[in-house]
Amino acid sequence: MNRSVSGVAAMAKMTVDQLEAFLADVFPQMDELNLRVEEVRPRYLRARIITSEKNLRPGGTIAGPTMMALADCVVWLAIIATLGHGEQAVTTNLNINFMKRPGPADLIAEARLLKLGRRLAVGDVMIYSDDGSDGADHPVAHATLTYAIPSPD
Amino acid sequence: MNRSVSGVAAMAKMTVDQLEAFLADVFPQMDELNLRVEEVRPRYLRARIITSEKNLRPGGTIAGPTMMALADCVVWLAIIATLGHGEQAVTTNLNINFMKRPGPADLIAEARLLKLGRRLAVGDVMIYSDDGSDGADHPVAHATLTYAIPSPD
Amino acid sequence: MNRSVSGVAAMAKMTVDQLEAFLADVFPQMDELNLRVEEVRPRYLRARIITSEKNLRPGGTIAGPTMMALADCVVWLAIIATLGHGEQAVTTNLNINFMKRPGPADLIAEARLLKLGRRLAVGDVMIYSDDGSDGADHPVAHATLTYAIPSPD
Amino acid sequence: MNRSVSGVAAMAKMTVDQLEAFLADVFPQMDELNLRVEEVRPRYLRARIITSEKNLRPGGTIAGPTMMALADCVVWLAIIATLGHGEQAVTTNLNINFMKRPGPADLIAEARLLKLGRRLAVGDVMIYSDDGSDGADHPVAHATLTYAIPSPD
Repeated sequence: MNRSVSGVAAMAKMTVDQLEAFLADVFPQMDELNLRVEEVRPRYLRARIITSEKNLRPGGTIAGPTMMALADCVVWLAIIATLGHGEQAVTTNLNINFMKRPGPADLIAEARLLKLGRRLAVGDVMIYSDDGSDGADHPVAHATLTYAIPSPD
Repeated sequence: MNRSVSGVAAMAKMTVDQLEAFLADVFPQMDELNLRVEEVRPRYLRARIITSEKNLRPGGTIAGPTMMALADCVVWLAIIATLGHGEQAVTTNLNINFMKRPGPADLIAEARLLKLGRRLAVGDVMIYSDDGSDGADHPVAHATLTYAIPSPD
Repeated sequence: MNRSVSGVAAMAKMTVDQLEAFLADVFPQMDELNLRVEEVRPRYLRARIITSEKNLRPGGTIAGPTMMALADCVVWLAIIATLGHGEQAVTTNLNINFMKRPGPADLIAEARLLKLGRRLAVGDVMIYSDDGSDGADHPVAHATLTYAIPSPD
Repeated sequence: MNRSVSGVAAMAKMTVDQLEAFLADVFPQMDELNLRVEEVRPRYLRARIITSEKNLRPGGTIAGPTMMALADCVVWLAIIATLGHGEQAVTTNLNINFMKRPGPADLIAEARLLKLGRRLAVGDVMIYSDDGSDGADHPVAHATLTYAIPSPD
């Protein structure tokens, strides 16, 4: 609850390692996403999806549902990392725009929390293809999500 | 492909069997969804997801991403069934509201096409839990989707 | 069209007249919308926007923001009519697809409540142009909305 | 306010003055929004809504429909400013999350274009209350919009 001390204002309540251990524990099936958390700060989280044969569609692109699952996962992790709890948060709304077909490269997802209230959280996610070409200027998808946070009691 | 003759207004361009054969051919990975088309008419399609261990989460509920993939799939099939083609249609936007956790029962998805233009299609999907209790009055999720339809040339 | 007689289940907690008096009282500025409630049942409300010079854009079409305000208003009224209270409900999300430019005719909006929980309500609205031609088969817009319902205490 | 000097890459095709003259010409009814463009760059535009009695609701807050109209207007202006044309662009989807009630202060809207294709544009808008307190860290609303851009011929 106290964020304290020095540059601490820039520290989330869970580290990258703690988050990944937590995820492997709670959602073993997320292994399919091949998700690796790269950076976490209060109200911010960046993750990478390692692209492999199994999440490519014919044509070498990544399926829309894979990106929706990614978006949902990273905002939920950003809530948990920021609060130090919140795994009971339930997705109530997801809106996603697909802007460009990603090629067969890793995906980068950057999540921000726009609101983190007692009962409701709102976040957005920008998804890039890490294909060395246009990078952050040409996202492949952008999603906005809302979560209901159950009362602690 | 030919819509024929008599009850014409009530017939789509593809039958349930043709759609399922098409789906198995184009998206073998959709097998994971365990989707069965139950009814198809112009601008309307109803499908069922057979719920089994593998698409249940701990707690016996069905994951949000499974419902998003279902929503995307049924509207896309409704486009193809109505046009007799359109498999190149690309999802550009999906908005979904999750309203109730589904229990461990089959899901029913009813898709309607709200617009079917030359370049743009819009549809919505109501998702119910087939748990014998409250049925259609208490949907578990509702999604709206838009698709870009590439020029035929 | 006739809502008839018996069946308490088919009655909302407020009548059309009560709703319109309430609206004129609480939102006098809604007069600009020129909204008339036509039918109300539990979880359902239909309204009409009388189109006049002042809500037409150059070109004789109705502005998008007018339709968004209409969508927001009718779902909110459906909540109030169904509950007999709820005017403190706050819109938290609105998603709208514009499908066709409406011509210079009245608009019809049909709102359904998809979920009406203690803290959260979800509804959708189909908007038609009452231009005598294609009617309900060719809606001009469709919106989905969520509301937070404050605790009564 | 002037970002200037070198860097042509940093210049949009229309200046703030040109945009405001254009807006007053094409949408005189936008006067009601009391909108002033503050900064424009390629794929970016920031505007301010001067809050006055007439766009306040009882309780001193700004109505949701006002924010929706603002969001729609600023992304559309960002398209026009970036392209040097595009006023025929038509809104096809708007998704907005309302996160906090704005008090009786000016609103700031920052629009970014996430995609600017030949036929489709996608943008998002963050809306802040310029009330001197929490600023950009606590946005009052966030919207995502898509536009269909008609062929030039």
